[in-house]
Formats: sequence, structure tokens, C-alpha cells
Amino acid sequence: MILDEVDIKDIATGAYILGSGGGGNPQPTYLMATQAMSNGNDIKVISPKDVPDNALVVPVGNIGAPTISIEKLPNGKEAEIGLRKLEELLNEKAFAVMPVEIGGSNGLAPLVLAAQLGLPVVDCDGMGRAFPESDMVTYRIFDCPPSPMIVTDEHGNIVVIYTEKDRYVESIGRHLSIAMGGTCHAIDCPLSGSQIKAHTVHGSLTFALGIGRTIRTASDKKLDPFAALESYFRASAGYSYFNVLIDGKIVDVMRETKGGFDYGYVLIDGFNGSGQCLEITFQNENLLARLNGEVCAMVPDIISILDRETAENIGTDTLRYGQRVKVVGIKAPDILRTPQALDALGPKKFGFSESYQPVELIGGYLRTE
Amino acid sequence: MILDEVDIKDIATGAYILGSGGGGNPQPTYLMATQAMSNGNDIKVISPKDVPDNALVVPVGNIGAPTISIEKLPNGKEAEIGLRKLEELLNEKAFAVMPVEIGGSNGLAPLVLAAQLGLPVVDCDGMGRAFPESDMVTYRIFDCPPSPMIVTDEHGNIVVIYTEKDRYVESIGRHLSIAMGGTCHAIDCPLSGSQIKAHTVHGSLTFALGIGRTIRTASDKKLDPFAALESYFRASAGYSYFNVLIDGKIVDVMRETKGGFDYGYVLIDGFNGSGQCLEITFQNENLLARLNGEVCAMVPDIISILDRETAENIGTDTLRYGQRVKVVGIKAPDILRTPQALDALGPKKFGFSESYQPVELIGGYLRTE
Repeated sequence: MILDEVDIKDIATGAYILGSGGGGNPQPTYLMATQAMSNGNDIKVISPKDVPDNALVVPVGNIGAPTISIEKLPNGKEAEIGLRKLEELLNEKAFAVMPVEIGGSNGLAPLVLAAQLGLPVVDCDGMGRAFPESDMVTYRIFDCPPSPMIVTDEHGNIVVIYTEKDRYVESIGRHLSIAMGGTCHAIDCPLSGSQIKAHTVHGSLTFALGIGRTIRTASDKKLDPFAALESYFRASAGYSYFNVLIDGKIVDVMRETKGGFDYGYVLIDGFNGSGQCLEITFQNENLLARLNGEVCAMVPDIISILDRETAENIGTDTLRYGQRVKVVGIKAPDILRTPQALDALGPKKFGFSESYQPVELIGGYLRTE
Repeated sequence: MILDEVDIKDIATGAYILGSGGGGNPQPTYLMATQAMSNGNDIKVISPKDVPDNALVVPVGNIGAPTISIEKLPNGKEAEIGLRKLEELLNEKAFAVMPVEIGGSNGLAPLVLAAQLGLPVVDCDGMGRAFPESDMVTYRIFDCPPSPMIVTDEHGNIVVIYTEKDRYVESIGRHLSIAMGGTCHAIDCPLSGSQIKAHTVHGSLTFALGIGRTIRTASDKKLDPFAALESYFRASAGYSYFNVLIDGKIVDVMRETKGGFDYGYVLIDGFNGSGQCLEITFQNENLLARLNGEVCAMVPDIISILDRETAENIGTDTLRYGQRVKVVGIKAPDILRTPQALDALGPKKFGFSESYQPVELIGGYLRTE
């Protein structure tokens, strides 16, 4: 399919909700993508099955703290110079690009490159949501080699990382994001067509598009966007549970940027004298939600804080006192719930003592509706 | 000339004194060099004039805080894997290696590589001493392009930095040293034979050797090593001023490791009721000395704290209360005193308000002898 401007806006809306609060605000990337499209090429989305097994597919996205990414804007060429360096080092042309993660701004990052260079975007990603650490991608968890990874910045600096261990990609990449002012662009490890077929989340880009379209259509028809979203999610194969965890007002936010991440928590009091209070802990992304002290959703399931009128996502970087929100819990794709994946990105990986429990078991059924 | 084990020990002694307190403790590198020599090739030192103009010369050394470099030992292959990556990227074989800086451990770093790979070492370096920041090298100050620079660590990670501006080499390299545990190995920007002839400090390796030999010979003959050193330095073309700034005891040391550097100061009270007190401020290297509040030596001139009996150097990482020392001020090579160089590495660059004054004007004449 060829994307038009409305599609890109819909993807921005949908990807931000899939970001679990992170992945970065998609607005600047939306603007870059539509500008690149008007000056450049069509943005064509292809299915993983349309990629030849030996073709080179390049995952792209940004590393950094969301608070910084909304103030330190890119020059728009970061991805291109990184991709060209990769092609030079591998002596091979890229066949297509894909998002490292579908969440937030990073879901749109490959669209910019696609319009600039005329490359197709594959309808898949490496997280099925957003995660804070760059090694939390399905293709690494399932043993695709982590290097070379290429990091670039708005000054034209290019840094190439060669390593054999995933954890060095994250620790070195994170320090580079700090060296580069808090955010940088990454061209992740090169993948083959067969690797993306086996080890990525398929259909996430078009699923994000459908989320945005669902909200837009409901809004046009003056329908409740949350009811429309619930139907849309529950009809999907991968993200088949969607539930409102609380309907209320943000009464406290603590957030600090350190070590290249945004850390903090947010408290939401339920409306209508429900006496409910939801506490969400985040590291770039919302990781764990407790309703009156009881865990009701946890990573890798998606916890997103949406405007209670428009269902637009509010990222962890823009949470503030007084916002009226509905918090939703969404089932993560099954690939993230395998034992291998839970070891790499489950609650214990983030220092929580609780073992993972699926949101459909602990998230309740429209508790506040 | 071919170096023997005694020569390498002498270079270690001399390079540490030229390090102005930094460059790292040379003992581990001395051991690595002698071990590599016994298993490998002769270490041959050649003059810059013996390098063909188009030949590839590779400066090598470590980046990091001296306090960390004495605890986090290398695996010995860091330089080799970096050099091989550079050769692969440039598609050219290295003709010779050289020290990034002659100071401390880094003065010996290329000897290890020379013995491992059978490459000659050029008798020159990029600082004529040690400096804390990796862009404070003569060949960059005089506009040799700063990239690619290659950083490696003991886990086999290789990071290649491509940039057009010197300051990014330092800021990115410094963050990489932190990501890699506080120290890392650097293969600095590739130089040509004509560049090293025009833009490095010549003869520094053999000059360091002469320092060590002078101290060793004086010790063998039960002569005062400081008097012998004074004669040796004053007879040289580049380092022609050498003076004892104070003879006394360390009475206070403050040191902290942050942002990849060791920062601090040391206070030395003069002996014999002289009432003199010398305060030295350091950032990895000793930068500025005040005698009773008056500046008596400042960067780029060399300030080294030597054991008052043996004249062995005490690095900023091992200063402690009670050490009996003589502090010496040494004239920096003229290339470091040019206006271009003072802009890049003079006292103002380190935040001091004082303008540079040569140590031979402010250092006094054997004040404490």
C-alpha cells in the first residue's frame, strides 16, 4: 500500500498509543515524514512475506529520553547518513527499512527515510510497542547478531559499534545518546528477509494505522473512541485485550532525566468518588500499574495514558497535574510473552519483584465504566 | 635503534615524569611491552624523517581516568583489534605506530603494539607530555582531520567515530570511556608521514628514554638525581628549563573521579620551616601550581611531583598524605606555546583566569635548594 498524509497522521496516533507512554512524541516525525513525502517519493508499505530471504532490511529509530527528544529536534538527515554508512560498510544496498519499535515517534522514523530514499517500509517492527533499552528487540532476543549498529547525530557525527553482545549495544549506545546531547539516531543491526520473517512483530505498522483510523472515524461520527478502540483491539490477533484501568485525574507526577532515561511515576485518582488510585512507574515507557496497591498491568503488556475525551496518547514526557485521562491496559503480542522474551524484557528485568502476569488476568473488566 | 628491556624501563620512568602527573601509571604497560617483546618482535624506534611522506602512521593510547586505569587492566589485544579495523576501513596497511602522548603509560602503549605486530615506533608524539582531553594533540591543533578514530575495550568491542570536528572526538570518546568502564583504548586519526614531520613533537620517545637513563645512572653512582636531571633537561632543545618548585611533604589531597576524569588538588608544605606552601590543581594532569598563592607554573608547561629521594614520578592517581616530594616545573616544547596551541590547551581552556606565562619566567631558580 502507498501511504497518504492522513495515513501517516493515523499511524502517528496509533503508534503513540502502542508506545506504552514512550517511543517519543510522534509530531516532529510526522511533520518530517509529510515534508519528505511532498519533496520526494511515495511511502510504500510492504508485507514481510514480500521481502526476499537474502534482502537487506534496516531497522531505524532514535535512542534517548523522550523529554529531550521534544526539545532537541533532528536535522532530518541523521537516518540517511547512517544508512549510507551501513551500505558502504556492508557493500550492499538496503532493500527496505523498518521501525526498531512501533511505539511513538520511532514507529514513523522509517517513513521519513522511505520518502527520502524511495525505499519501501516493511510492515513489522522489533518490539510490538516501545521499550526503553535498545537491546529489547525481538530479533536480538532470538539471536540475530547485534552489530554493526550505527549511531548518528544532527552534527553529522557517525559512530559505528561492532560488538558480539547485546548488552554492549545498549550500554555503548546509551552513553553515545548522552554524548550527543540526550538523543541520537540509530541504524540498528542489519537483518535479512528471513530474519524479519521469523523474528519480528508482523503487521504492527498497519495495525497502528488502524488505531488512528478508528479514533478519527469515531470522532467524525461523535462516537465514544474508547468503545471503538476496544472493538478494534479485541478483533485483532496480536493485541486482543484492551481495557480501561482507571478513569480519572492526574494528581501527582515525579519525573527525572538521568543516565539517558526519563524515570518517574504518576498517580491518578479515579472520578466519581470511586476511591480508586492508580500508580504507574515508568522508565521512558510505562512499566507497571498498581490499582490501590494491587498490580493490574505490567511490562511487556502495554500501559497507555490517554486523554479521556479524544483518546490521544499522553507520553511520559508530557504528563502533568490535572490532566483528565483514561489509562488503558493492552495485551502485548505473543512473541513478547515467550520465556526468552520475558527474561529479556519482563518485570524482573526492570527491578520489579513481581513475576509477570498477563493483563487479561489482572486488568479487570472495564472497572470504571 | 632497537630497544632492550632496560630501555623500556627507562622510557617508563621518563615518560611518567613528562606526563605532568597524568598519562597513567606506566608499570602495567611496561610489563605488557616486555612480555610482548619476549614472545614477539624487536621494538624498533625510527626517526620521523625515516617515514615516507605517504606512509600511514597510527597514533595509539588510552582514554580514561588514571585512578581507573591502575585497577581495570587491559587484555592486551585492544590496540591490535583497533589497528586491524582501521587498516580494514582504510584498505591500507600501517607503516608505523606512535604515542598519542609521551606522558605516562601512553608513552609506552605503541611499544606493545610494535612488539606484537613487528611495526616500528616513530620517535615523536602528539603532546610532548600528557593532556587530559583527547583533542589536545598537536596534529589536530594544526588541522589534521580528526577521523576516523577507533575506540576498543577488553571485551572486544570496537567503536568507530567519524566526525569533522575535534571537539566531538573528545566528547564522544570520553563518553565511550565511561561506557567501557572508565578507560578504553584509542586508535587515533590516521596520519601521513608528512603530517607527523610537520605537526608532532619530535624526539620525545628517546628524550623520555634519556630521562630514565639519567636517573638510573645517577642512582647507580649515588649522585643526586635532581641535579642530574637538571643538567639533562637544560641541555635539551625542547625541554630546556627544569626547576624544583618546592621540596616538602604532601599535607592534603582532594581527588574525585567524575565525567571520566580525575579532578582535584594537592597541597605541599615546604621543609625546613620555609613557610612555603604549594597548591597544585589537576584534571588527570597537574595543570597549575601556586606557591604561597602566586602562580609559579601553568599548563602547557609540565608540573611533576617526584619522590624526593628517587626522583620517580607520583601520578595524580596515587598522591597521598605524607609523601615526601620535590615538585618540578619543566618547560613545554615550543610547539605547545604557539598561539594556536595555547588557545587549545592553555590555562584558559581549563577555566583558569590567568593568562599563560612561561615557567622559566615565573618558576624561580632552585628556590628550595
